[in-house]
Amino acid sequence: MDIHASQPAAAGMRDPLVLREDKGAVATLTLNRPSARNALSQALMAALQDALEDIGDDNRINAVVLAGAGKAFCAGHDLKEMRADPRRELYEQLFRQCSRLMLTITRLPKPVIARVQGIATAAGCQLVATCDLAVASQEAMFATPGVNIGLFCSTPMVALSRAVGRKAAMEMLLTGNMVSAAEAQAMGLVNRVVAADTLEAETDALAQQIASKSPLTVAIGKEAFYRQADMAIADAYAYASEVMTRNMLARDAGEGIDAFLQKRAPVWKGA
Amino acid sequence: MDIHASQPAAAGMRDPLVLREDKGAVATLTLNRPSARNALSQALMAALQDALEDIGDDNRINAVVLAGAGKAFCAGHDLKEMRADPRRELYEQLFRQCSRLMLTITRLPKPVIARVQGIATAAGCQLVATCDLAVASQEAMFATPGVNIGLFCSTPMVALSRAVGRKAAMEMLLTGNMVSAAEAQAMGLVNRVVAADTLEAETDALAQQIASKSPLTVAIGKEAFYRQADMAIADAYAYASEVMTRNMLARDAGEGIDAFLQKRAPVWKGA
Amino acid sequence: MDIHASQPAAAGMRDPLVLREDKGAVATLTLNRPSARNALSQALMAALQDALEDIGDDNRINAVVLAGAGKAFCAGHDLKEMRADPRRELYEQLFRQCSRLMLTITRLPKPVIARVQGIATAAGCQLVATCDLAVASQEAMFATPGVNIGLFCSTPMVALSRAVGRKAAMEMLLTGNMVSAAEAQAMGLVNRVVAADTLEAETDALAQQIASKSPLTVAIGKEAFYRQADMAIADAYAYASEVMTRNMLARDAGEGIDAFLQKRAPVWKGA
Repeated sequence: MDIHASQPAAAGMRDPLVLREDKGAVATLTLNRPSARNALSQALMAALQDALEDIGDDNRINAVVLAGAGKAFCAGHDLKEMRADPRRELYEQLFRQCSRLMLTITRLPKPVIARVQGIATAAGCQLVATCDLAVASQEAMFATPGVNIGLFCSTPMVALSRAVGRKAAMEMLLTGNMVSAAEAQAMGLVNRVVAADTLEAETDALAQQIASKSPLTVAIGKEAFYRQADMAIADAYAYASEVMTRNMLARDAGEGIDAFLQKRAPVWKGA
Repeated sequence: MDIHASQPAAAGMRDPLVLREDKGAVATLTLNRPSARNALSQALMAALQDALEDIGDDNRINAVVLAGAGKAFCAGHDLKEMRADPRRELYEQLFRQCSRLMLTITRLPKPVIARVQGIATAAGCQLVATCDLAVASQEAMFATPGVNIGLFCSTPMVALSRAVGRKAAMEMLLTGNMVSAAEAQAMGLVNRVVAADTLEAETDALAQQIASKSPLTVAIGKEAFYRQADMAIADAYAYASEVMTRNMLARDAGEGIDAFLQKRAPVWKGA
Repeated sequence: MDIHASQPAAAGMRDPLVLREDKGAVATLTLNRPSARNALSQALMAALQDALEDIGDDNRINAVVLAGAGKAFCAGHDLKEMRADPRRELYEQLFRQCSRLMLTITRLPKPVIARVQGIATAAGCQLVATCDLAVASQEAMFATPGVNIGLFCSTPMVALSRAVGRKAAMEMLLTGNMVSAAEAQAMGLVNRVVAADTLEAETDALAQQIASKSPLTVAIGKEAFYRQADMAIADAYAYASEVMTRNMLARDAGEGIDAFLQKRAPVWKGA
């Protein structure tokens, strides 16, 4: 086990804003502003961006768990910071930074699993919707409550509306109401709901399972998933057929299929 | 409370085809051809189009309930009218009128909530799928039965297939079978199912809740929802980030965030 | 009843790789490599392609059931065949052949219903996702386990991710886990789950119900469904409105509406 903090985004910080802990081929990134319910200050987003980019280049890591320290998963943007200097340029920069962060998760060549305890609201709910998979504790609560403070959750909706049905997304966005973990699972926002005291173990088990696959194969597949999702079906098939050919010619596919036919465990090379 | 009828589409009509009743910032539009199960004659569609356009320009109204008078919500197109004069030009005009009506609901800068008792079939089911939200009584029934009369529900499918999963939509379209309110909720066609005797109250409460938000914020968010839904994800984020910046610079967002930070109720200006 | 085998793809074959049985206007195509769990060898895919194209041109057939002989529905590609000659050109050809087969199902002017007993994995799961409707026995199991053998199910994901929510699709693709028939129904991959001993009867009843509709109407509607699904909503409405006009001008629509208004059964001409 290896515990180290991601590079703090701003100089002079004492507590790292994002903690990273590696177990085998799984890195857990923990948002670490518990006193602010892990609100996504610019510094926290920068730290998470750096941590994700580090992992993207780290051949030892095959899967990522995204967690929050303390009682909340993430309460969205840092409203005090947002109101402190209300200039167009700063807002443009802030929302671009946040959208870039979300797209970084989507484009990361390793699966990212949200591990959700407590509340996941606004951009915090967006993080859950953006992650490839999500596991929630029974007490977790989800909302896009921006409408209650005059700021519609328009960037969170990009992820939310691609994860759940339109009517469900619209109800969350227009009412700002909290939905329970069970409701979130029913609508497709989270994959699994578990007891709070098993949340960490269940999420780790899922991450380790995925981390045991060929990282090359997973990287090929994750990229293809999101790319084909934006295509018309005939284009998607033409693209995915090329992806399959490329995948078949990689060593790990040959090894995997041979191992399967020979009834033995495969040995991945990531190539 | 203010009760008045929308402008009848054709001269000489006695009973208005669409009733409008305002309670606070919520307008309820009621399809009013109960003897024809609120079938969407050209006159009724024109009256609804006018009523929606009036509300679009009415600063006193923040949310809309769409209801049907009598036992049915809406039984779709008026088949007798359609067969009375079977000319291509008239059909083209009819379906263009209907599609324009549906897009008017989608583009209206105020949320529209379907309040469904009884049957919602064909273009009536399309209305439910098109509304931003839908509340149904336990007895409500939904179908796209055009296939049974040789006329596939091709325009209803545009809305239906964007609200529910493909297999569920296909089953409704290919079989014409009725689905219950509970099934409609499970597939994502309606948000809530309530007892018949509380349908009006529950729908009104939801509408009033939404009408209490900043109408500017809701208008920004609703428009952004449907526009980003048709975009690839990277484009959607670029667009939604601009929307967030515009929203943040509006007075209501500043007021809403300040009120939240000061733990007081916001006072919306709609600006 | 009429039982005959589709043209075998390769000369000299004894058992046809795809069986065809017609009952009234329903053709049942059965994948017939039970000893290989109906794995999609090139020869089997070619035989299915031929059988589908025959049915596409066969005016006696209005609906298709796709089934598998033996214990499995379909276990995906034939891995032994794939590894026997690992050349890029052959893989390109194989995946193009498979994608063409899937698009043939989507474009066939007659609904195709998967009848799933046992496992439906990888390209077998893709077949289920691709069919317009699917009925499963309670014991049926579904997976996209390519990730376990180093070959991500990238072409199956094209169909899977259009049938079910993103988080559910991602979990299947990243873990390779089996999902039960009940889970498959909850996520939208299959329409109905029935007891194993009623699977054939229930699927036939559904197919016969659909086969009793106007085949022209169904063909118009099925084509429109998939075409509009790839369009932005305003384009979809413009297109679907034209489709409705074309449909209304067909004889079967006039007959269907007149029969409905006259409270008699329609007599379809398929024109």
